[in-house]
Amino acid sequence: MISSREQVTQQIVASKVKKGIKWSEVAKAIGLSKEWTTAACLGQMTFDKQQAEIIGDLFELSDEAVAWLQIAPYKGSLPTAVPSDPLIYRWYEVVSVYGSTIKELIHEEFGDGIMSAIDFSMNIQREADPKGDRVNIVLSGKFLPYKTY
Amino acid sequence: MISSREQVTQQIVASKVKKGIKWSEVAKAIGLSKEWTTAACLGQMTFDKQQAEIIGDLFELSDEAVAWLQIAPYKGSLPTAVPSDPLIYRWYEVVSVYGSTIKELIHEEFGDGIMSAIDFSMNIQREADPKGDRVNIVLSGKFLPYKTY
Amino acid sequence: MISSREQVTQQIVASKVKKGIKWSEVAKAIGLSKEWTTAACLGQMTFDKQQAEIIGDLFELSDEAVAWLQIAPYKGSLPTAVPSDPLIYRWYEVVSVYGSTIKELIHEEFGDGIMSAIDFSMNIQREADPKGDRVNIVLSGKFLPYKTY
Amino acid sequence: MISSREQVTQQIVASKVKKGIKWSEVAKAIGLSKEWTTAACLGQMTFDKQQAEIIGDLFELSDEAVAWLQIAPYKGSLPTAVPSDPLIYRWYEVVSVYGSTIKELIHEEFGDGIMSAIDFSMNIQREADPKGDRVNIVLSGKFLPYKTY
Amino acid sequence: MISSREQVTQQIVASKVKKGIKWSEVAKAIGLSKEWTTAACLGQMTFDKQQAEIIGDLFELSDEAVAWLQIAPYKGSLPTAVPSDPLIYRWYEVVSVYGSTIKELIHEEFGDGIMSAIDFSMNIQREADPKGDRVNIVLSGKFLPYKTY
Amino acid sequence: MISSREQVTQQIVASKVKKGIKWSEVAKAIGLSKEWTTAACLGQMTFDKQQAEIIGDLFELSDEAVAWLQIAPYKGSLPTAVPSDPLIYRWYEVVSVYGSTIKELIHEEFGDGIMSAIDFSMNIQREADPKGDRVNIVLSGKFLPYKTY
Amino acid sequence: MISSREQVTQQIVASKVKKGIKWSEVAKAIGLSKEWTTAACLGQMTFDKQQAEIIGDLFELSDEAVAWLQIAPYKGSLPTAVPSDPLIYRWYEVVSVYGSTIKELIHEEFGDGIMSAIDFSMNIQREADPKGDRVNIVLSGKFLPYKTY
Amino acid sequence: MISSREQVTQQIVASKVKKGIKWSEVAKAIGLSKEWTTAACLGQMTFDKQQAEIIGDLFELSDEAVAWLQIAPYKGSLPTAVPSDPLIYRWYEVVSVYGSTIKELIHEEFGDGIMSAIDFSMNIQREADPKGDRVNIVLSGKFLPYKTY
Amino acid sequence: MISSREQVTQQIVASKVKKGIKWSEVAKAIGLSKEWTTAACLGQMTFDKQQAEIIGDLFELSDEAVAWLQIAPYKGSLPTAVPSDPLIYRWYEVVSVYGSTIKELIHEEFGDGIMSAIDFSMNIQREADPKGDRVNIVLSGKFLPYKTY
Amino acid sequence: MISSREQVTQQIVASKVKKGIKWSEVAKAIGLSKEWTTAACLGQMTFDKQQAEIIGDLFELSDEAVAWLQIAPYKGSLPTAVPSDPLIYRWYEVVSVYGSTIKELIHEEFGDGIMSAIDFSMNIQREADPKGDRVNIVLSGKFLPYKTY
Repeated sequence: MISSREQVTQQIVASKVKKGIKWSEVAKAIGLSKEWTTAACLGQMTFDKQQAEIIGDLFELSDEAVAWLQIAPYKGSLPTAVPSDPLIYRWYEVVSVYGSTIKELIHEEFGDGIMSAIDFSMNIQREADPKGDRVNIVLSGKFLPYKTY
Repeated sequence: MISSREQVTQQIVASKVKKGIKWSEVAKAIGLSKEWTTAACLGQMTFDKQQAEIIGDLFELSDEAVAWLQIAPYKGSLPTAVPSDPLIYRWYEVVSVYGSTIKELIHEEFGDGIMSAIDFSMNIQREADPKGDRVNIVLSGKFLPYKTY
Repeated sequence: MISSREQVTQQIVASKVKKGIKWSEVAKAIGLSKEWTTAACLGQMTFDKQQAEIIGDLFELSDEAVAWLQIAPYKGSLPTAVPSDPLIYRWYEVVSVYGSTIKELIHEEFGDGIMSAIDFSMNIQREADPKGDRVNIVLSGKFLPYKTY
Repeated sequence: MISSREQVTQQIVASKVKKGIKWSEVAKAIGLSKEWTTAACLGQMTFDKQQAEIIGDLFELSDEAVAWLQIAPYKGSLPTAVPSDPLIYRWYEVVSVYGSTIKELIHEEFGDGIMSAIDFSMNIQREADPKGDRVNIVLSGKFLPYKTY
Repeated sequence: MISSREQVTQQIVASKVKKGIKWSEVAKAIGLSKEWTTAACLGQMTFDKQQAEIIGDLFELSDEAVAWLQIAPYKGSLPTAVPSDPLIYRWYEVVSVYGSTIKELIHEEFGDGIMSAIDFSMNIQREADPKGDRVNIVLSGKFLPYKTY
Repeated sequence: MISSREQVTQQIVASKVKKGIKWSEVAKAIGLSKEWTTAACLGQMTFDKQQAEIIGDLFELSDEAVAWLQIAPYKGSLPTAVPSDPLIYRWYEVVSVYGSTIKELIHEEFGDGIMSAIDFSMNIQREADPKGDRVNIVLSGKFLPYKTY
Repeated sequence: MISSREQVTQQIVASKVKKGIKWSEVAKAIGLSKEWTTAACLGQMTFDKQQAEIIGDLFELSDEAVAWLQIAPYKGSLPTAVPSDPLIYRWYEVVSVYGSTIKELIHEEFGDGIMSAIDFSMNIQREADPKGDRVNIVLSGKFLPYKTY
Repeated sequence: MISSREQVTQQIVASKVKKGIKWSEVAKAIGLSKEWTTAACLGQMTFDKQQAEIIGDLFELSDEAVAWLQIAPYKGSLPTAVPSDPLIYRWYEVVSVYGSTIKELIHEEFGDGIMSAIDFSMNIQREADPKGDRVNIVLSGKFLPYKTY
Repeated sequence: MISSREQVTQQIVASKVKKGIKWSEVAKAIGLSKEWTTAACLGQMTFDKQQAEIIGDLFELSDEAVAWLQIAPYKGSLPTAVPSDPLIYRWYEVVSVYGSTIKELIHEEFGDGIMSAIDFSMNIQREADPKGDRVNIVLSGKFLPYKTY
Repeated sequence: MISSREQVTQQIVASKVKKGIKWSEVAKAIGLSKEWTTAACLGQMTFDKQQAEIIGDLFELSDEAVAWLQIAPYKGSLPTAVPSDPLIYRWYEVVSVYGSTIKELIHEEFGDGIMSAIDFSMNIQREADPKGDRVNIVLSGKFLPYKTY
């Protein structure tokens, strides 16, 4: 019996390695971006019924697992507050080094408020560069102002 | 006597509010992006001599403070491991929710390695949107592969 | 020279005790709710120019302090991750005991998404009760759905 | 053999997904609010004998599990001190940003004391709004004064 | 200018050592128990006007300090989550070793609920004993039951 | 094979719920206080041979488990440094709010030293009260003075 | 079914002890340094197909395990932020005691930037010494400068 | 009055920036390696009388400060357990990623024991490289075996 | 299959309770002190082949477990940074209360350096005392001086 | 005005360096062991009136400081839970590596109970050794048994 989405994520991850499937192929199968699809497969987003069934077929999941894919999960994909993996740590470092800069510049442009992490999308691309290819990432989030009341 | 860059950052921040200077004006004065300039003023980057003197003039800093601006600082701009400020927390949340996704997709495209946070740049723009304007941020970092030896 | 909003908050708090002003009087003076006004005076919200000047008059603040009141502050009003004050801890306990319940019921009603803490208001009232008066608090936050992309 | 309430909670959660039961239906079955019922099913409250048996029937639990439902549980539903899930974090953020405000306003109205988290109830409702529906939550807790002795 | 109750506590503590006053004398002066009085002087309780003025006279405090004594303080008297002082640690150890026992026995006697730490009193006495005198402490707290709704 | 006392505690706890035994009955069976007995059953004290065998009979434990009951255990009954359970937290709060008070009053009465948590006993009783019954707890610990050498 | 690289590491470690294989022999088998090879076997580096198959033969791993060896792993080999093992702690101590020294001297020689931990190699050798043999370790990392933009 | 070595370190650091002295010049002045000298100036090593006086002259320190330089300091140069500065973090990352590897290879070569961090030296050099210069660091520590007794 | 020394420690501990063996008997069997022997059985030291086989016979371990006893283990025997067990905590308290004293007195006698925890032995004895027997512990560690280079 | 014992400790420490006094001389002046005396001067023990006055003379303290020396202090001499100083860390490591061993052997000899850290003394001596002098430390603490009640 499955009692958490995390168990389904482990099944997907195990099945993916065993069957050699790529995230971009999964994305194509459900017709959405590779960023959203991967996050959803890793237990951070909720699939609708049709998407969940396609995922279930691809990774040979049980009906119970497919039902779990349609439930809003407890989110957060990292095992520690400060991540130990070097690739993910670099992102944490960007937040640490540039966090106050991002805050200042968004406030200078928009006033007090935040950039939404919910009404949000992400796009990851390779940029060819003779000095070594680069990872280019575009983040887009709606600005939400604090209001008085 | 000044014994840390943080003291200079506090002088800049205090002077900025008092004199009503904008970060974009500071950036223009030294001829660099507003992102790098703000990070540097907030104690995360090192100015060269000429830049430091312009900054010193703008914020009315002492010669000693100007000397400190040319020393590589102890970096990290946040007071706690998990940031309490809502705007900065949203970025931490993106790392938490999307961290494993970013890792998977960069590895799928590039193999094992990281996106550099040093050979790195950032660009923050307002995107007009009838449903509410958006914050668009482009991050660009060189891919650095792990090699065997 | 003032280098953080926290210094202004301390001046307001000290001045409030010395002069015996009530938060509800401050709210009336700027024409907003007592909840928003108190949060703003405690360094969690940004005043506009006119409001800041009224606050400056009430608490006898310097022009520099009044300038700081108009800058979006680094938010977060608690000194530790788990609050030690009994009143505030009770709220933390509610999040701990009822957190998963709130999550389940919002998802059951709205689907995957969050209740905004930005497009948000709060109203605190006394409810008379023969067995002992009660504190009634109404929280209202816009539902923000996660979308696919 | 079952040695903690948490194991029963996992059985309920697994069974709920498998059978597609809604929390509001569970609440109706035992004749109490959906808020209390969900919290109890998630291991935060104690059922009496009759309620426990209804829950046992609904989720097909063993007699041993039904016995556990009648034992006061070790409470606290979150895996980390600072929650990683975005929906639950927003509540933690409200405590962080508004904590000192709530404290000030309750003290201004009632004097020194706390709002009880035990003699406490919660009501979660959808509020229709043309700009996007809102989550409305009413919290009601008895005021408990500190006394001298 | 005084911006926190903690500053007043430090003045009281400093003045107490300098003048050689005993807590039991302070308690007698305001006509309350030595336990409540000491907690209040150490910044954990709120004095009324008359009490505050007596305290102010005893410790030679300013009018501003006397005003602060009448404000409900941010409570919590220990500098770390796990106390380093051996005497206070022994109490933390009692909570650690006997915590689950206390919980079981209160639930066995009263059902689900808590022992209040607000409607609460404490009495510390010396008990003569030929094998070495003992510290006897009586804690009395109202039982508050969780209720269904 | 059993490799820790904690496994025996889990067997006792599971067996207790299944068989509906009360702690006060267990205490009567071994002829000691309910406080010590419960603490011992929850893995915080060491039984002698005769007591262990009675416990083994009551809870239907294996010989191996009975052997473990006679071994001094690794003590500490709480899963986190700051307890999340509301009942146990109230005790932690008492240590937090009254810790410095207890320290001051014991030192005022006895001089420098501690109240022992080893040569220690505890007694929990219900006190009837028309305004709501109270939990009364008496703690008794030997005073141990620091000595010079 | 295998759902993390860590499970494969445990199989390698168990198999290594059982079969008495040396890391230097493993390194010879795949024709790389003992430092890189050991790190890879311990789950910190990614093998290519041919290397993974040799490792699979040596340690008698399943095909599924061999597939996992070719996936970039979640890195970080220590169970706690401050390591408890004395040998590994000594390295943490070097970072603690010499960290600011290393920073100062690299900046004095190279300017602002870092020593890469990705474009990085390590060589561990025994140095005979009459007063007791020494461990000599050479670390080599590319200098990566921060650039303006 | 100076009450900690850290105050002297701050004076040295402030004076160094003001006067534009290089660590390599300081090392030459006292005739030792730049690594040891920098660590000592940053409060991690103890100077003898003659060295302390040279340092005192270079940085214009008081006699009291010079006395402090000859006292074994409380060591540890980093403000947090996990360092936030990117350059120093890379070293922490090496310990995290390679820690178990270093442990395995030293044990394979030497048996059980540690590499001393006391009978230890470090040498930092620039290595020219057409693909970008490298930082080369040699660490040498005596092997200390665990013995039976 | 065994994948860590900890699993072997659990087998030894379980077997010891089941068979009623004493640590002093184990020490006699391998001809070493009870202190070293116990530490080694609890997974903190490495046995040689002959010792491991005696231990294997005493505790009826498999050949695989005996092989693990000869591998240098990941050391550290406590589950939390601040130990919760009262006996072990008292030692931690000694480090907390006397730590700076030990540091001062070793430096006064020996100069800058440390007392080795590797070239180290410990002896625990009962000292009869009419006021209550005492635990006497002798620690002996080589002094290792910091040297200049 | 002095509001904590820590301020007096800082005065003693500053005065000691300035005047070049040794701890052993201080001990001789008050006629007690160097271990107790140093701990007391560092704020961990309470002086009686006569001792405090001698200390006051030696270190040229004010009357107020001398009064503070006679107040039982808030104990604990280390700034972090895991000490960063190498000498003090070695002691923490002994607790970590040998903690469970000490526990087992004391229980084997004495039964369940603890070694007191209050009725406790410590003696630090140099032991000459041709292979390098050793630090010998004798710890003596009364055994305190847990009793049933």
